[in-house]
Amino acid sequence: MSKVCVVAGVGPGNGASFSRRFASEGYTAVMLARNDAYLEELKSEIDGSLAMACDVRDPAAIVGVFDRIHREVGSVDVLIYNAGSGDWNNVESTTLDGMESSWRTNALGLLVAAQQVIPSMKANQTGWIVVIGATASLRGGPNTAAFASAKAAQRSLAQSMGRSLGPAGVHVSYVIIDGIIDLERTRASRPDLPDEHFMQPDDIAESVYQLTCQHRSAWTFELDLRPYGEKW
Amino acid sequence: MSKVCVVAGVGPGNGASFSRRFASEGYTAVMLARNDAYLEELKSEIDGSLAMACDVRDPAAIVGVFDRIHREVGSVDVLIYNAGSGDWNNVESTTLDGMESSWRTNALGLLVAAQQVIPSMKANQTGWIVVIGATASLRGGPNTAAFASAKAAQRSLAQSMGRSLGPAGVHVSYVIIDGIIDLERTRASRPDLPDEHFMQPDDIAESVYQLTCQHRSAWTFELDLRPYGEKW
Amino acid sequence: MSKVCVVAGVGPGNGASFSRRFASEGYTAVMLARNDAYLEELKSEIDGSLAMACDVRDPAAIVGVFDRIHREVGSVDVLIYNAGSGDWNNVESTTLDGMESSWRTNALGLLVAAQQVIPSMKANQTGWIVVIGATASLRGGPNTAAFASAKAAQRSLAQSMGRSLGPAGVHVSYVIIDGIIDLERTRASRPDLPDEHFMQPDDIAESVYQLTCQHRSAWTFELDLRPYGEKW
Amino acid sequence: MSKVCVVAGVGPGNGASFSRRFASEGYTAVMLARNDAYLEELKSEIDGSLAMACDVRDPAAIVGVFDRIHREVGSVDVLIYNAGSGDWNNVESTTLDGMESSWRTNALGLLVAAQQVIPSMKANQTGWIVVIGATASLRGGPNTAAFASAKAAQRSLAQSMGRSLGPAGVHVSYVIIDGIIDLERTRASRPDLPDEHFMQPDDIAESVYQLTCQHRSAWTFELDLRPYGEKW
Repeated sequence: MSKVCVVAGVGPGNGASFSRRFASEGYTAVMLARNDAYLEELKSEIDGSLAMACDVRDPAAIVGVFDRIHREVGSVDVLIYNAGSGDWNNVESTTLDGMESSWRTNALGLLVAAQQVIPSMKANQTGWIVVIGATASLRGGPNTAAFASAKAAQRSLAQSMGRSLGPAGVHVSYVIIDGIIDLERTRASRPDLPDEHFMQPDDIAESVYQLTCQHRSAWTFELDLRPYGEKW
Repeated sequence: MSKVCVVAGVGPGNGASFSRRFASEGYTAVMLARNDAYLEELKSEIDGSLAMACDVRDPAAIVGVFDRIHREVGSVDVLIYNAGSGDWNNVESTTLDGMESSWRTNALGLLVAAQQVIPSMKANQTGWIVVIGATASLRGGPNTAAFASAKAAQRSLAQSMGRSLGPAGVHVSYVIIDGIIDLERTRASRPDLPDEHFMQPDDIAESVYQLTCQHRSAWTFELDLRPYGEKW
Repeated sequence: MSKVCVVAGVGPGNGASFSRRFASEGYTAVMLARNDAYLEELKSEIDGSLAMACDVRDPAAIVGVFDRIHREVGSVDVLIYNAGSGDWNNVESTTLDGMESSWRTNALGLLVAAQQVIPSMKANQTGWIVVIGATASLRGGPNTAAFASAKAAQRSLAQSMGRSLGPAGVHVSYVIIDGIIDLERTRASRPDLPDEHFMQPDDIAESVYQLTCQHRSAWTFELDLRPYGEKW
Repeated sequence: MSKVCVVAGVGPGNGASFSRRFASEGYTAVMLARNDAYLEELKSEIDGSLAMACDVRDPAAIVGVFDRIHREVGSVDVLIYNAGSGDWNNVESTTLDGMESSWRTNALGLLVAAQQVIPSMKANQTGWIVVIGATASLRGGPNTAAFASAKAAQRSLAQSMGRSLGPAGVHVSYVIIDGIIDLERTRASRPDLPDEHFMQPDDIAESVYQLTCQHRSAWTFELDLRPYGEKW
């Protein structure tokens, strides 16, 4: 029976690369996204992968999809929490919905998803939870009132998880993405930026995969990733 | 007409001291708390103070109470956001309610309260928003999954507010309380701790008041406060 | 007998304002600088102040000057460590001299100066050491290899001092200056910057003075100061 | 011609494992240490490795040994700066020598060693500098006045290097070791600690090696490493 990697939040960028990378190592990649149109296409491309619709802002939907995963696929070895969209506005133009939706996507959804996989990981004394974060988790910018706040909540929650689950054999990591992912959409919106400012999703996926290969005497909780041309 | 200081989250500790300190400088202290029994008592003790019930977890209640303040008292010069209760559990025992209630109290409530006072502060090109934070805002501990995450979200939001409102003349500060407040309740629960580990609410209030006296060429966004006996 | 405040590193900006502010509260201000030409001028302007030449990069000179202070003035109540010059270059153009001089000025000098005043502060169970830091202490920029590294060393040393001396009644603080001081020299070099980007030394001095007024149940170790117009 | 990896600071722990790991990938491992008795033994064990005596506290010695490396081995592809000893005392008992020796080992030595390899790395538009840091780089503890201060200086310098060298194709990383290395010496001094609190040098070396395999669109500057049983 193959190991199981759930990727929560799969689009054409990092999520697709995570799914491909873990599938290439023999994992059954279970791909979750709000809209499953793209997932179906991706599923046909990745051998043995599965696609399931799930809006991570809805706790009941998360519980439901993990019930299905446990029934149809088995216990989860790796959870990659890649849902990360958020609202970009300053404090004055941030709406209640923008604030709440950002927090549900980044923080509450992580809590609920993690709670679904922790029991079996603890029982197995092994398991990996990798949370895909952002530089915004480290500071609130003038125009990221909701997004940065949600990412800060997410990073804090990941730390709490790492500290409480480590001794039980569950490895939690937080990956700080500090750059723009190379996508059709991001290239179109930043035609001014040279190649060296764009991050390749496959390169990010490689570092995420390596995290799950670390021996437990030397685990990484947090690492940053940025393109070599980035000013930081 | 006297200046107005709203203290959101008033109990027998810091909130009462903030109210007294600003009242002693001639401010009209408007005291908000979920349960207004204690407020009524405190109100009779502080000249010219006002007490209004408000559950900061409920955005509509916040909007309502500030409408009343604007009508009955006038525009707000200082907002001290002191609502800070939260849920203390590890990731496994944290409930949806505990997670959401912590976030609403610490982060969403701050957003909504700030949005009520920002327009007049910007119009006046002056105003102070002081957020009472905690060391938990800096890191997620094993047993503070919900509380630390909510405080991290709050600190990030305060930074975002500080960065966007500073140039408009509005001074935002975040105060990191790193110690136990000296209260009947905390003394009872920690009879082992010597005096030098307890913080006096009046001493905290003094530093908060001084923040509002800083000239705008040298504003503090963040400061920590801890008792001299504290190991940190 | 009046209390004694030693300001190490006095020029026309912050150092002069610190000296004036503490002198105005009745302290004997002892002003130290490498070159004492400016000091003599300032001394004639500040009642009861004293000026002594001291290159803080030279430990023996520091020991010597504090011996003299102890003999001629008495034990020190407040030490403000304001020596902060450093070398601004990238890693390739940083010289051994630039690296060492920056470190001696900011870190080694602080150690030696603090060691001269700690014994009497501990004996008195009271005393203040305020270290004037910079945002560079928080991160190494591409062109601040030596300066930022020296400031990071300084901030770490101040933390170590704060943690070990607090329970003995000695209050150590680190002040992060995040902006340009308003001086003839800085105005000339940045004619493009509007007024709201310059910090008034007197406003900085006020916050430093307030630190020494905090009651010991609520001490600040670190605070930042920046002009309201600053982008941060 | 094989690639060259210089490990500065080689003892029986991490340094030996770094040397073995990179040698196993075909690198010529050049091992530097103050005392070369252990190096000679290790050299006989690692195929094609070289051992050279060098006290990194002495800039001239560093310049000399890299001249020899360039002459005898060629240009350096990977520099692992593993020299990390330091003085553990509180501010009062820290000596001038302890303070200076710690800083020279951790900060000045890194500057000088890096300056020897940067020119050829920039010319080749590729190269790796990995600095082995410690949690002490993040905060000054009461009894780490000199050590933590030196590590903070080192981390800041590494950041400065990373920011200025990244766009030139040189990848700089800082590895925060947060735990006790599993050595005869450390086991003897902490017989109370269970296995899960000790870090295996080979596991650390694996993560360091993986850093040098990252593609340049997604480089890590900083990562932490700790044993799964560690309280943090």
